[in-house]
Amino acid sequence: MTQNIYDNEDFFAGYGALPRSVDGLAGAPEWPSLRALLPDVTGLDVVDLGCGFGWFCRWARERGADTVQGFDVSEKMLARAREMTSDAAISYERADLETLDLSSGAFDLVYSSLAFHYIEKLERLFSVIAHALRPGGRFVFSVEHPMLTAPRRPRWIGDGDEGRVWPLDNYLVEGPRETDWLTKGVIKQHRTIGTYINMLIACGFTLSHIEEWGPTDAELAARPDLAAERQRPTFLLVSASLQN
Amino acid sequence: MTQNIYDNEDFFAGYGALPRSVDGLAGAPEWPSLRALLPDVTGLDVVDLGCGFGWFCRWARERGADTVQGFDVSEKMLARAREMTSDAAISYERADLETLDLSSGAFDLVYSSLAFHYIEKLERLFSVIAHALRPGGRFVFSVEHPMLTAPRRPRWIGDGDEGRVWPLDNYLVEGPRETDWLTKGVIKQHRTIGTYINMLIACGFTLSHIEEWGPTDAELAARPDLAAERQRPTFLLVSASLQN
Repeated sequence: MTQNIYDNEDFFAGYGALPRSVDGLAGAPEWPSLRALLPDVTGLDVVDLGCGFGWFCRWARERGADTVQGFDVSEKMLARAREMTSDAAISYERADLETLDLSSGAFDLVYSSLAFHYIEKLERLFSVIAHALRPGGRFVFSVEHPMLTAPRRPRWIGDGDEGRVWPLDNYLVEGPRETDWLTKGVIKQHRTIGTYINMLIACGFTLSHIEEWGPTDAELAARPDLAAERQRPTFLLVSASLQN
Repeated sequence: MTQNIYDNEDFFAGYGALPRSVDGLAGAPEWPSLRALLPDVTGLDVVDLGCGFGWFCRWARERGADTVQGFDVSEKMLARAREMTSDAAISYERADLETLDLSSGAFDLVYSSLAFHYIEKLERLFSVIAHALRPGGRFVFSVEHPMLTAPRRPRWIGDGDEGRVWPLDNYLVEGPRETDWLTKGVIKQHRTIGTYINMLIACGFTLSHIEEWGPTDAELAARPDLAAERQRPTFLLVSASLQN
């Protein structure tokens, strides 16, 4: 089973104080880019894998989705998601994405934000998603960028007069990475961009777009603290579809 | 016009002494991976963009290609390619890939090895390639990996007790990079993995496979000098197709 770090007291407290937890989608700098990859959700049956506090589930319903089903491994997050939701067309369910099953051909859009880099058996999950989508269905997700998860010691370092650089190593060595983020011993699964893409293709998806996210000029003007994220991308955003 | 560094005396002398120049395809460590992305060439009309000494052109004919056309910007390389070739079905032609035109629907396979990172107007070229291929045609190419071309100062640096790391920066800042490789002032065009992939999709290609190349265990055993290439990939290999 996936490490359920979100139900760790320290992690949950820290995560709950992040802008993306307090302000929802508007607090996530990559949201405008991820949103641009989404289809019009009007009338769609939508799944959110790793729904957290349910921000995306409520957004999709407000934009006209027929039904939205959110799955998450964290009981604490689901409890708060349910508190913030009063809509019978949104349902939340606890699930480990390593072992999740979804009804066959039941959905038009599968969405996931920053969850898959915790998942070990990702090809199994991609295959479940391919079967859960109707023909023409869309699959849009984000993960931490592999350049972020690769290094043995991920942090900015000085490079003489050249300013700060990101100490890339271990990129082609896939597998678990233990980092201290909000609390000690958070385990993420590093895989290459190639692996993400080839897994999608192997599961029958056609790739529509990928974005290696960093802030635009306008975003940098509003958030000067993001300047380093131009040096190496923060997130990998992917849009794929199942052919009709 | 693209910088024609290959006709620089120092560069040509240095390049001509590399294993991939002396031993041909067998001297290129990524060749087995690139070859695995190729279709059976029997009966195909093939183009090689940046054909250099013509090693791939001759390989494709030996494997049964109907015709092979090699293009390169370097007169010196084409002269040597012609010296090494005696086959009326192989033709070599000087061309700048920035302005190349190809006959419409005339080819089954477009191949290119380590040429596109010199090209500024790559989307134009991808579009020319898409029109030159027949329905179902294949497009297989390699470039220097974007993690290699990105940094302002590309070389291994120490990271305390952690050994050597690759000082990644400037990844999201696309454009020219001047490096000293074999001679001074070699200009490469850095673009992200996302840009390569999205350009292909925009030109109507369906992505079949990408590989971020590093040596396998067996290759490392034979070439211990390649160990660092596990830390960050050396090449990006791409296979795409035009739908029928």
